[in-house]
Amino acid sequence: MEVYLNGKFVPYEQAVVSVEDRGFVFADGIYEVVRIYHGKPFLWQEHMDRLRRSAQAIRLKLPAMEELTQAGFETMRRSQLDDATLYIQITRGAAPRLHSFPVGVEPTVFMIARPYHRPAATMVQKGIACITVPDLRWHKCSIKTVGLLLNVIAKQEAEDAGADDAVFVRDDVITEGTSSNFFMVKDGTLITHPADDFILRGITRDFVIELAEEMGIPVREEYITRDALSQSDEAFLTSTGVEVLPVTVIDGQKVGSGRPGPVTMRLWERFDQVVAESVE
Amino acid sequence: MEVYLNGKFVPYEQAVVSVEDRGFVFADGIYEVVRIYHGKPFLWQEHMDRLRRSAQAIRLKLPAMEELTQAGFETMRRSQLDDATLYIQITRGAAPRLHSFPVGVEPTVFMIARPYHRPAATMVQKGIACITVPDLRWHKCSIKTVGLLLNVIAKQEAEDAGADDAVFVRDDVITEGTSSNFFMVKDGTLITHPADDFILRGITRDFVIELAEEMGIPVREEYITRDALSQSDEAFLTSTGVEVLPVTVIDGQKVGSGRPGPVTMRLWERFDQVVAESVE
Repeated sequence: MEVYLNGKFVPYEQAVVSVEDRGFVFADGIYEVVRIYHGKPFLWQEHMDRLRRSAQAIRLKLPAMEELTQAGFETMRRSQLDDATLYIQITRGAAPRLHSFPVGVEPTVFMIARPYHRPAATMVQKGIACITVPDLRWHKCSIKTVGLLLNVIAKQEAEDAGADDAVFVRDDVITEGTSSNFFMVKDGTLITHPADDFILRGITRDFVIELAEEMGIPVREEYITRDALSQSDEAFLTSTGVEVLPVTVIDGQKVGSGRPGPVTMRLWERFDQVVAESVE
Repeated sequence: MEVYLNGKFVPYEQAVVSVEDRGFVFADGIYEVVRIYHGKPFLWQEHMDRLRRSAQAIRLKLPAMEELTQAGFETMRRSQLDDATLYIQITRGAAPRLHSFPVGVEPTVFMIARPYHRPAATMVQKGIACITVPDLRWHKCSIKTVGLLLNVIAKQEAEDAGADDAVFVRDDVITEGTSSNFFMVKDGTLITHPADDFILRGITRDFVIELAEEMGIPVREEYITRDALSQSDEAFLTSTGVEVLPVTVIDGQKVGSGRPGPVTMRLWERFDQVVAESVE
């Protein structure tokens, strides 16, 4: 397997960065994960636009977008993968460890394509179980940086508890999953956290909101308290990887009937259709 | 220059980690910076104790302490440096990027000794200027992880503003500096933020509190509001690197007389004395 690193394609085993790369010592970097369906990137422009916004937010000067796009497409092409994710990470480069920004240092650019498959039909039909964990993350979750330690620990806690994933709760409000956005359905209306600094504004989140609106499903962006959640009819996660994934159990309690709900499944089917159309 | 990496000493240029090291992709790592005065590590045990606490907090299994100590001392010895810092970073190792903890993967251990000198006498005599920045960091600042992006940006903002450093303010309370703890002096009493989850409990912070108590200077650990700060007589930062460093200007306003205060300077002198004694 080859990966893209700073303008070159190198074997995975030789893809290394300095121990003083600022991604390694300061979490001074951003990333994107793009889904490849049948060899074609899905919502590429949206991911690149978010990458640009993340870079601006941390004051990181990106290489030219054409260069990144070319590198991304070439990484996909060389991987010869049909169904894959393309991971893109950019850091402020390698320099002796001083907090302030280094001068005259090029960013580190890393891309890797990996085989990836859609969530199994059995998982979608059954839905997943989540636990809730306190959201102690920073107040800039809107920036897609590599500072993911609490996401990592939350995911591990979920697995330790025999669940599939965790959702964060800040001040009694459900914010998002460890690598996904959270939606609930109440009386036929979708409700999800507003795209403020306390969540990462998912490309799939926004896309699902668009689909819902096209389908005449009302959408409200507002805070979901634990109490509101306990009254919900349905719940699901969205992300590049899980697409639209029903959540049927939270903290051991059934969500609604305890089975994937009709609104969730209509969105899943529509999403499935759009993906099929996108690769025609 | 040689650095320690995973059991070996390697030239700096060859000290590299995988692009999938969890320190690089998830900020899944912790660190310490130990001060070396005249070839001797200062407060070594305290740093190792904190490293152990950080590891426990993120559920990272450390190598044996004897091994780390031996590696640290050998890194110092080989550097042949008299006045230095020893930087120690440990991550959850390299593995294909999945949030949950990898199984059967060894942590990455990296150490580097660098020349370091005490803050210049002129700087101590004049004091430094700080700006304040909103503290939007996570709610686990008590863990010394590599997730330092906001510290990095705050330091850069300070320099852009023509100041020396920044101090964080959360909900109107001064928490700490970008890589230091913050103290103010009012009516002869030291006041500093309690060692809760909103600050990193500095080794130098605790040491200075001990010194103050021995010297009969009262110490209170309590929240410092902006208003309290505006009434302070003196202020200073503490850290492994800056030791006891007067802050004489904050957001363009003089602290007290605008010159390093007598309590600060008594502590600085005592600290200086302890360092001199420690290397005898």
